[in-house]
Parts: sequence; C-alpha cells; structure tokens
Amino acid sequence: MKMKTCFITFAFGAIFALPLTGFTAEPIQVIEPVKQINLALAELGKKLYFDPRLSQSGWISCNSCHNLSMGGTDNLKTSIGHKWAQGPINAPTVLNSSLNLAQFWDGRAKDLKEQAGGPIANPGEMAFTHELAVSTLENIPGYVIEFRQVFGDKEINIDKVTDAIAEFEKTLVTPNSRFDRWLLGDKNALTSEELSGYELFKTSGCTACHNGPAAGGASFQKMGVVEPYQTKSGAEGLSAVTGKDADRFKFKVPTLRNIELSYPYFHDGEAATLKEAVDIMGRLQLGKKYTDQENASIVAFLKTLTGDQPAFTLPMLPPSTDATPRPKPFE
Amino acid sequence: MKMKTCFITFAFGAIFALPLTGFTAEPIQVIEPVKQINLALAELGKKLYFDPRLSQSGWISCNSCHNLSMGGTDNLKTSIGHKWAQGPINAPTVLNSSLNLAQFWDGRAKDLKEQAGGPIANPGEMAFTHELAVSTLENIPGYVIEFRQVFGDKEINIDKVTDAIAEFEKTLVTPNSRFDRWLLGDKNALTSEELSGYELFKTSGCTACHNGPAAGGASFQKMGVVEPYQTKSGAEGLSAVTGKDADRFKFKVPTLRNIELSYPYFHDGEAATLKEAVDIMGRLQLGKKYTDQENASIVAFLKTLTGDQPAFTLPMLPPSTDATPRPKPFE
Repeated sequence: MKMKTCFITFAFGAIFALPLTGFTAEPIQVIEPVKQINLALAELGKKLYFDPRLSQSGWISCNSCHNLSMGGTDNLKTSIGHKWAQGPINAPTVLNSSLNLAQFWDGRAKDLKEQAGGPIANPGEMAFTHELAVSTLENIPGYVIEFRQVFGDKEINIDKVTDAIAEFEKTLVTPNSRFDRWLLGDKNALTSEELSGYELFKTSGCTACHNGPAAGGASFQKMGVVEPYQTKSGAEGLSAVTGKDADRFKFKVPTLRNIELSYPYFHDGEAATLKEAVDIMGRLQLGKKYTDQENASIVAFLKTLTGDQPAFTLPMLPPSTDATPRPKPFE
Repeated sequence: MKMKTCFITFAFGAIFALPLTGFTAEPIQVIEPVKQINLALAELGKKLYFDPRLSQSGWISCNSCHNLSMGGTDNLKTSIGHKWAQGPINAPTVLNSSLNLAQFWDGRAKDLKEQAGGPIANPGEMAFTHELAVSTLENIPGYVIEFRQVFGDKEINIDKVTDAIAEFEKTLVTPNSRFDRWLLGDKNALTSEELSGYELFKTSGCTACHNGPAAGGASFQKMGVVEPYQTKSGAEGLSAVTGKDADRFKFKVPTLRNIELSYPYFHDGEAATLKEAVDIMGRLQLGKKYTDQENASIVAFLKTLTGDQPAFTLPMLPPSTDATPRPKPFE
C-alpha cells in the first residue's frame, strides 16, 4: 500500500515535470490562486464593496459598476454615476486587478487601496465624501463591531475602509481557465483553432503588451501606434498623471483575462465585440490587417482566458439604525 | 441503545406538545420554511432577478430596488428608476412577499408572477418592454440553453421569464426569527421587554391588521382611520385598481417581518424610524398615544421578527455575445 502511493507520487511528478518547466517560457503565465488573504478583513471588505451607503444616494456601490455577476464590469461603454451622470471612461474589470502595475486607465492610483477611495468621492460616481462615508459607517453598529474585530481598535477611517475593500478585491482572481490548464500541462484543454490563434497572437506581437499572468496590466502603451485612434473620448491617459506630452494617449494595457465577459472594449468602450477589438488593435498597434479567419482564431484563443469566477455568498449588510445618516438620492 | 432512542423521541414529543398547540392561537404565526420549489426554475429566476439586461439601461435589475443584501428593499423613501427617475412609492420588501394576498401597495398584481413583469416595462423603473427583454434573452446563448432545460422547449417569452423570477422569489422566506423560535416553544427566545411589547401590540389592536405568518400582507386597510394621514404622496391605493371611492387610501398592510431591515416605513417612506412608525400607527389607526416606554417595548418586539436572510451564492450571469442587443443607458 505504501509502495503504491510512492509510485503514484513519482509518476505524477514525472508527467508534470515537462509542462511545468515549459510554461514559464510562455509570454502569458498561469494565474496563481490567491494566497495570504486576511479573511476577516476581506469579509468586511466584501460587505463594503456591496454597500450602497458609501454613496450619497444610498444606491450606488462598488458592485454597481464592477458587477461581480458580470465579469467585474458593468458591460456599458461608460458607466452611470450619481444622478445618472455619464462617466468619461469604460469601467475596467475588478477581476485580477491586483495584478495591475497601477489602477485606473491612466494609472493615477498606485494600488487597489488607493483606487477604492476614488469613486466614493467622485461627484460623477458615488458623489460622497470620505468623511460622510466614515460617519455613516460609524453609525452602523454592525460595522462598528466588525471594524473593531478586524483592526483591534475602535476608530473607523477611510484608510481602514479602503484597506478592507482592497483585501476583498485581492481575492478576485480567476485561475483555472482553459488556457491555464493548457499551460499547466493539459494539452487537450485547447482546440487546434484556439492554439493557432494563440500562435498568431504571439507571432503578431500582441504579447509585447499583453503578457504576464494577467495578459496585460503590466505597462502603459500608446493607443494608436501605427495609425492614430479616432475617438470622441476626452481621456488623455497617462499624461494626465505625469504632465508629460509624450504620455498622451498612453493607457494602462487592459488585462485580457475574462475578456469574453468584460465587453465592451477599450478605454472609451467603443469596440462592442472582440472581433472589432482584435481588428482595431491589429491595424492601429501592429499595422496588421487580420483576415476573418485569423481574427476568428485569435478571438477563439481569447475566450480560453475565462477563468473560474469568484464564488461567494451574497453578503448581508448590517442595518442602519435611527442614528445613521440617511442617504440623499434626490438632493 | 434502541430503547434509549425511543425514550428521547418520546421526551422530545412531550416537551414540544404544549407550545405546538399553543402557537396556533397566536395572531402572528410561524413562517414555514419554503417547500415544493422547482430548483432549476428558481436558479434561472435568480439569474434573471440579478440581471440588469432586463432594463433599457443595462444597469437596473430587480435587485437594484429589492436588494437582498438589505432586507429585500433599497432603504430609500422612494426608489430610483431609469435616468434617476424618482419613484412615486416606497419599494416594499421582496422577502416573504409570496405570503401577500396580492402584490404592489395597491394590490394591482394578483401574484408574484404578475408583479415581476411590471417594473421591467415601467418607464420610471427599468424602462424596457417585455418584447425587448425577451429579445435580449433570446440572444444570450447561456439563457437559451437554460430556458430549454427548465421548460423543455426552445421558446422564451415573458410568461416564462416572470414564472422563473416568481419561483426564485418564493424561496425568499425568512424563517427562524427569535419570535418564531418563541412561538415554537423556546420560551427564552424573547426578553421580558420584547414579550411585553408583543402583549401591548396585541391588546392595542395592531394584530387586527398585522397578523398571520407575515404579520401583515393579508388585507387592504385605510391609512388614517382615526386621524387622516398627511402626505405629499399622490398614491391613492386600492381605489386606483377598483375605481371605488371607498377604497381611497387603502393600502396593502405591509409585512412586519424583517421590519428592522426594511426602513424607511409606509407607502411614502416618510417614517424614518420604527419609533416614528409605531407612534403614527398608534395615533392614526388606533387613536392611541404610546408612552416612550410603550413605544420602545413594541419596537423591541418588532425587532424579534428578523428571520434568517436568504443565503445563496451570487449568481454568474451568462455573457452577451456579438448578436445580443446592447443596452442604451443614455438614449
């Protein structure tokens, strides 16, 4: 019995030795399952992520625009904010966003924690202030107890709020896509069309920007290299942060993970389909006009990047009490 | 061993015999856990309940206003609809709504299935049409397969859509509140203050309307019996359905189940707190001015009606494809 176990272990190691060495050479790498999560902090963050009381109206939560039932986006060209404000830019997916080198399309937040505070105070998004958000939470007894439990002291502040939301967001990785299973050695995980799409994706140069575990998120690149990108969007990209003219129209390269779910595409959301997005990227970034068949094979490959979506119980939010400030949706 | 089991069974029966006979005499009865659910139909309904693609904007779902993280309501005086339309009436909780004699405050829908179609096509709510909603679903392959699996044929229509949503809503009962445990024989489940609040609730006459398993939902009653109710709301209640002048300002008696979670109160949402609601109800409906202590004891009793909230995994929605009509949030 014991010998048999040893033999199986050995055989298992032998089978996987080659692929495990192999996949590190691929430009797109396996998404690692998440580790080192502070569970209590993430649970608190999950509640805050779903809590519309962080907005002035009491109606908009993080999940309103980064909907975890829909690939971590709202699937709109640009988002809807307070009083139906039309957002200036496409909501990027929150899935795997911990893998980004910075947050927002222009990278103006260095990490998830810094990002989380942005929409709460943005007049066109949740239209609240950090002070009012904290004051609301301070007057919800269930949160008071949970913050104390998680942080060990009684103070609630925006730093702790964004810490918790960021910890929850760190859990939103999507391992185990068919592409990952192929990288991990399951050679039957991809069809021949998907594999040839991946080959074309690499040989065309797409992986110059879309690489690493997130197949993106690791650099800022100019939108419109070979040809300029025509858009009505006023978003200027990285130059809005650095002030450098050379950074105009440089945007954070979006992750291609779960790209099948996170339509529409580009910072202005103007590409409705993957076919359109692949065509535009080929022409504008690489000077390459894909045939219909080439385009289809790349799209087929891209759809293999859909991983296991985060699965969790819808959180129950602690109720407001008589002392909790009331939302003001119509003022 | 066998004898011991028999003895325990016998003793268990004896302990519970009295309360089980007893609770049927109470005006508020135990909420029965839900039975006879078509699970596949309810699972489909859960997805539809969370799917904002049933709205013109692609941003408003059933859950937007009947938020299952927040007691099945939006906790706003009146709801926010398409393009931030201000709703005319307070969103009633979806929790235990299967126990209502009819749906909406004025009872204009006879059941959950009929209700579910209303907001989809209401220009001030989801602002879609049934035809467009069905056409959207017909172009989402994941739904096409799921409808076929559940209904056994390939047609999708609004009848099936509302059937599924209603089946999901039937699962949203909240048994096991402290009050139910008391009804079921756990005499330690309520404090003496809560019990005296319940006694006062009964002897004052509140249970004339707030009775049955839902502590409400079983009749239409005039708002403002002893004194007229002062409100800016234009809602006329049952008369809007029956056309009878005698039915003016008659509203469906709201359930008191989970009332701690479903603030603010009344059809216009003008009572922000339970204290205020109890005070107004006492004066206007019963001609009774409760002392602060009486009010507090009734409020304490009402908070024992919070049951187990529905716990389920956030549904993943099947993605749109190139052929799926796109939402139009800003047109």
